[in-house]
Amino acid sequence: MTQAWWLNPCKPVDTDAVENAAARQQQLTKPAGSLGRLESVAVQLAGLQGQVKPTLDQVWISIFAGDHGVVAEGVSAFPQEVTGQMLLNFVSGGAAISVLARQLGAQLEVVDLGTVNPSLNLPGVRHLNIGPGTANFAKGAAMTRAQGELALQGGRDSVLRAKAAGAQLFIGGEMGIGNTTAASALACALLDCPVAHLTGPGTGLNAEGVSHKAQVIERALALHAAQRGDALQTLFNLGGFEIAALVGAYLACAQEGVAVLVDGFICTVAALVAVRLNPACREWLLFGHRGAEPGHRHVLETLGAEPLLELGLRLGEGSGAALAVPLLRLACDLHGQMATFAEAAVADRPA
Amino acid sequence: MTQAWWLNPCKPVDTDAVENAAARQQQLTKPAGSLGRLESVAVQLAGLQGQVKPTLDQVWISIFAGDHGVVAEGVSAFPQEVTGQMLLNFVSGGAAISVLARQLGAQLEVVDLGTVNPSLNLPGVRHLNIGPGTANFAKGAAMTRAQGELALQGGRDSVLRAKAAGAQLFIGGEMGIGNTTAASALACALLDCPVAHLTGPGTGLNAEGVSHKAQVIERALALHAAQRGDALQTLFNLGGFEIAALVGAYLACAQEGVAVLVDGFICTVAALVAVRLNPACREWLLFGHRGAEPGHRHVLETLGAEPLLELGLRLGEGSGAALAVPLLRLACDLHGQMATFAEAAVADRPA
Repeated sequence: MTQAWWLNPCKPVDTDAVENAAARQQQLTKPAGSLGRLESVAVQLAGLQGQVKPTLDQVWISIFAGDHGVVAEGVSAFPQEVTGQMLLNFVSGGAAISVLARQLGAQLEVVDLGTVNPSLNLPGVRHLNIGPGTANFAKGAAMTRAQGELALQGGRDSVLRAKAAGAQLFIGGEMGIGNTTAASALACALLDCPVAHLTGPGTGLNAEGVSHKAQVIERALALHAAQRGDALQTLFNLGGFEIAALVGAYLACAQEGVAVLVDGFICTVAALVAVRLNPACREWLLFGHRGAEPGHRHVLETLGAEPLLELGLRLGEGSGAALAVPLLRLACDLHGQMATFAEAAVADRPA
Repeated sequence: MTQAWWLNPCKPVDTDAVENAAARQQQLTKPAGSLGRLESVAVQLAGLQGQVKPTLDQVWISIFAGDHGVVAEGVSAFPQEVTGQMLLNFVSGGAAISVLARQLGAQLEVVDLGTVNPSLNLPGVRHLNIGPGTANFAKGAAMTRAQGELALQGGRDSVLRAKAAGAQLFIGGEMGIGNTTAASALACALLDCPVAHLTGPGTGLNAEGVSHKAQVIERALALHAAQRGDALQTLFNLGGFEIAALVGAYLACAQEGVAVLVDGFICTVAALVAVRLNPACREWLLFGHRGAEPGHRHVLETLGAEPLLELGLRLGEGSGAALAVPLLRLACDLHGQMATFAEAAVADRPA
């Protein structure tokens, strides 16, 4: 586990496919540009798939779960055992992402990186047992380097399975009580941004709870300040197993040539870490939605990311990305199936 | 055609279904409110369909087309024959809405209220022949009262066909070179709003073109100023056949109990007219997207409407509403299929 696979080159985008797809958009029977964002995502997907008419029949969703030692500081509205309970709900079909995956015809995989219940053994869940949750990062590093590298590799392994199954789009989701605290801390450290700007209610803190959460993050940032310049070490200090798995997955997607649809705040922070580690991966990332967590907007802007949806979501599980899949599919359908002005004998605008 | 059917009462919303659906949302395995807008639309659809778990399998799309005499003033970037050419493209399957309807499994109906080519006879298109386009409203009324009532009834007839076919959601689309000019004029008259606020590039005018378009609208508003207080007469003075058909369709949907998904700027102005004529119809209207036409935001705000999407669209044809259908369907699926905390044995937050 010592070679840094995540620094290997990303697959280049097919610029010929981009040019040909952009030219095709100009010929379709609609005023130029009138399909807005759907035109640009179709052209982007053409470049990523290396074909003028991209398709998204095969969608793969990996949910990464892990527990967080920082919950001991009282930063979450929900009890920690919910992480494990939700793993069962994911595979039983009752969670939001289970419903969405079924409706989209997407492959859903559930990966438990390490929760507070290490004896958990659920049929249909991959238990990686990296540790009984992370350590409390307000008092020390969240994970060891060895644990962190296992989590990165866990994410990569999901992508290799997705690719082997023919996935044309990879969605990573997350579940972990306390993980907005880890994501906010990580984003503050990487962006050198005031804690108040990037700390929010998560799944349901009140104002007092948010203020306490921000104080915990302040303390943690001070504790780990010396290593702020090192994105990888900062991930290991402040992140979570599921966040590190997302980082590994996004980087592996860019290397293996699988387009990514990034979900909400926590996933976007993982994307930020991935881009810091290996900037060329940015081209492989599309963004599903802008969520309700206040810090999300800022991290998206830093990445120059324009998500497709804004519906006030704050669930995680990959749900916001899954909800954007029909839009990407319809963008591909419009791009591939609309008639050209010549085919339909419709007058283009006078020059 | 003299009785004012459009003033008949709208169907009341089922408040029991609304209450029960809202209670169900609170029990699903997710933090309360974490599905954002998808929760409120599922609850709204429950009230409109009168069942706790609404479904949207049957979607009906009617495209209303008409030509506009005001094009003689030089207000459009496209030649007027495009309206008729696009009718053929709609039924041949090459237009954006044709592709979307196919992918959504929606029923697509194309209604020609009256274009500049009255001899047009296209298989698959309903030609109503109300007139060879409207008259130039910069010089007189766009349509006679008799024409206007025929157009309103044309929209209602589509809804009656949709209802007979079991439609659970009605989308009206529009096609008509010059119809953003009519919609802007109509909105200015009804909202008593400066022309510059509600006039935009339509499908592709440059700044000079927009300025000329605004001057034409100013002249028309002055000409018809005496009747501004009368929403119906203002529709006949400044509207288009396809806009009047949309007004009739929205009102008939509210009377017949079919939920409506409103498309872009032109459709939203038709919705404004409908609400002015019969305010109770507002409850039956959902809004698909906020488009690129600058006036759209203002008209939406006036209606208290929060659209689901904002993708920079400016195509019309019902395309923006069609693109929002998968979100509504997934909102219903999540609402109907997710497990409750009790079913999944997941701990709800501590009180």
